[in-house]
Amino acid sequence: MNALFESLAFNEAGLIPAIAQQHDTGEVLMLAWMNRASIEETLATGQVCYFSRSRSKLWRKGETSGQVQKLVELRIDCDGDSLLLLVEQTGVACHTGRRSCFFRALRDGEVVTIADPETTPEALYGKNLTTDS
Amino acid sequence: MNALFESLAFNEAGLIPAIAQQHDTGEVLMLAWMNRASIEETLATGQVCYFSRSRSKLWRKGETSGQVQKLVELRIDCDGDSLLLLVEQTGVACHTGRRSCFFRALRDGEVVTIADPETTPEALYGKNLTTDS
Repeated sequence: MNALFESLAFNEAGLIPAIAQQHDTGEVLMLAWMNRASIEETLATGQVCYFSRSRSKLWRKGETSGQVQKLVELRIDCDGDSLLLLVEQTGVACHTGRRSCFFRALRDGEVVTIADPETTPEALYGKNLTTDS
Repeated sequence: MNALFESLAFNEAGLIPAIAQQHDTGEVLMLAWMNRASIEETLATGQVCYFSRSRSKLWRKGETSGQVQKLVELRIDCDGDSLLLLVEQTGVACHTGRRSCFFRALRDGEVVTIADPETTPEALYGKNLTTDS
């Protein structure tokens, strides 16, 4: 564990960006942020925990929605300032009900939606709608 | 173009994180940062240009090393605060000579190197060694 943190460069807010990628298909699911505590929790539980910048607290991915991410492997980039999380995503990663948060593309100068929701925010969150999933 | 920038949320430094992914294999190559000017240049030229935070200037990926990234598609996440660049990577993405910058993994509590260099920094940069590639 110490070997990991010695390799990491957190930003001035104590955070590091983390890319979540479905381990077997290669699909990039989302980008979120982690702090030291969220990394420690992720490694201890095997379930990915981020740090929510909007709520300033640990964000246990899927805690409300059930759409959890099981950590398969944590990777570190050359500068130690970005993480790549290989995960097994249950259901959908995006709070909009889509598999990936990257469901919009620039095509012919227009921003177009390229993926449909697989479920609804209401089904994911009931009446407790939140932008964190 | 305006439609794109209306969809984006830059951070307080005017930057947005961008994940580069090889478009056909799904390999995540690197994470870097873009500002508005670097996005405009990328879209105008079709070659990925980042913003180097360490050098505080545009970073035309591969300008020195020849290891350019051709933009295949730009995608935007649900919150508009992260980009996913699908690219055609020439050669290697990492300044260490490895295909991907994410060549270290945490395994059994140790940080281990999981990919070998395909070329050398000297071959990439000659005597003008730099951490930007």
